[in-house]
Amino acid sequence: MPQNEQPGSEFDAATAVRRAEGGGLVADLRPGWDVGDGVLNGGYLLAVVARAAVLDSPHPHPVALSAGYLRATRSGPATLTVTPGRAGRTLAHAHVVLAGGEGPCLSVQTTTATLGADEPLHAVPPPDAAPVEDCLPAAGQAGAPVAVPDVGIRHRVETRLDPATAGWTAGRPSGEPVVRGWVRLADGRDPDPFALITFADSLPPTMWAMGVIGWAPTVQLQVLVRALPAPGWCLVEARAGEVAGGWLDEDYRIWDSTGRLVAQSRQLARAPR
Amino acid sequence: MPQNEQPGSEFDAATAVRRAEGGGLVADLRPGWDVGDGVLNGGYLLAVVARAAVLDSPHPHPVALSAGYLRATRSGPATLTVTPGRAGRTLAHAHVVLAGGEGPCLSVQTTTATLGADEPLHAVPPPDAAPVEDCLPAAGQAGAPVAVPDVGIRHRVETRLDPATAGWTAGRPSGEPVVRGWVRLADGRDPDPFALITFADSLPPTMWAMGVIGWAPTVQLQVLVRALPAPGWCLVEARAGEVAGGWLDEDYRIWDSTGRLVAQSRQLARAPR
Repeated sequence: MPQNEQPGSEFDAATAVRRAEGGGLVADLRPGWDVGDGVLNGGYLLAVVARAAVLDSPHPHPVALSAGYLRATRSGPATLTVTPGRAGRTLAHAHVVLAGGEGPCLSVQTTTATLGADEPLHAVPPPDAAPVEDCLPAAGQAGAPVAVPDVGIRHRVETRLDPATAGWTAGRPSGEPVVRGWVRLADGRDPDPFALITFADSLPPTMWAMGVIGWAPTVQLQVLVRALPAPGWCLVEARAGEVAGGWLDEDYRIWDSTGRLVAQSRQLARAPR
Repeated sequence: MPQNEQPGSEFDAATAVRRAEGGGLVADLRPGWDVGDGVLNGGYLLAVVARAAVLDSPHPHPVALSAGYLRATRSGPATLTVTPGRAGRTLAHAHVVLAGGEGPCLSVQTTTATLGADEPLHAVPPPDAAPVEDCLPAAGQAGAPVAVPDVGIRHRVETRLDPATAGWTAGRPSGEPVVRGWVRLADGRDPDPFALITFADSLPPTMWAMGVIGWAPTVQLQVLVRALPAPGWCLVEARAGEVAGGWLDEDYRIWDSTGRLVAQSRQLARAPR
């Protein structure tokens, strides 16, 4: 079994990349990871790209991935084309293109490295958040509010929304584009860098907390993995900054169960109308 | 004269991209844009890439650039290889590789679009900052503190450091990895998206404000241009988040003279030792 995988994990199977006859890398994109209308979640797709990046790297961990999302991507067979960049003792660069039946879907600059266990010299502490047991189960679980669409990703990433940022689920949007919640893989697998990449685009769009409901398709997404996460739930906070001219930026910060910042992301997305 | 250029601007000349015989794109990287030891500033290099991206795009403005920095880059002739991605009415994707004498230097995912003048639905207000006339001229100008290295970029991007985040220039580091200042092109040219891309990596490393002096080479840098800037000085704030294991993230936010957020960036860098 390749490193970073756990027996029987649906996540590992769904993100698996293998070398086909002829030497090219292929994957089977799973329909269960959709965000609606059969369109797959951007974080899930980026985790598949990260698997390809480490296959051809001397380093085991994806630490920076910057992706252009060229088109909405659906389930089915996909190819991954890795163009290695420079590689050294500290890190390795590559460029990866994920292509599905309709053509190239993600074009990604990847950096892999070997994450250690050093204590931070400067840390980003987690925000105050309600404990998991006081949070709202999102769609896909018993007691979930009907306002959260019951799409595939909610069954794959178990999500508990912090009531402080979940007013929109009960028709009372806060007006602030912030959504916070606890997440873990529904298959019981502990988090690792690949799971963190998926989590970094897993919450409902932050504009929903402003009462603006609709798609917010990702244009570019950069994910940084900063440390190996401890087992257990991760706390995820998504926050939009500037919303203007049909565009918004959305930042994610992810802390592990010990309160350490383990990943962060920023995306430019199209704003819902 | 191509769009987005002003007569006699050194910045425009230094970032110019032209089509060579045979159809390939070339540039002459200028030695004056260095950060020391002849190594060129990452924002300057990314502005050159942005010029190439718009040359082959139906849209005039670079709105998102995500770059992997493969090696330290020095002045001299360079080639730019643009692989167009999908293009539509709203935006166009491309992948651009900038290569110098030693090989590929930057590998960049680019998105171009047409920025408008819409009012923000949600805005990021500027921080409190001392007015330009109360700020410290950085190296390259009369009265500059000796602690700021007198490198090329300081003569090309006029920089006035906010005293509140400049204690380190007088041997009194604040301990917080934040540096703020006003910037403009030294050639008198007003800011535009290309200048903003340069500004997005133009301040001294934020770790210097923690009293940790040294290089902080960029590994990946994502710049988002959010609006066309008004004429005049831009306020730039750089802030590191997590510093751990030899890595740090650094965020830039840039406001124009009217106080509107016009650009933002995030980079993963190697931390100075």
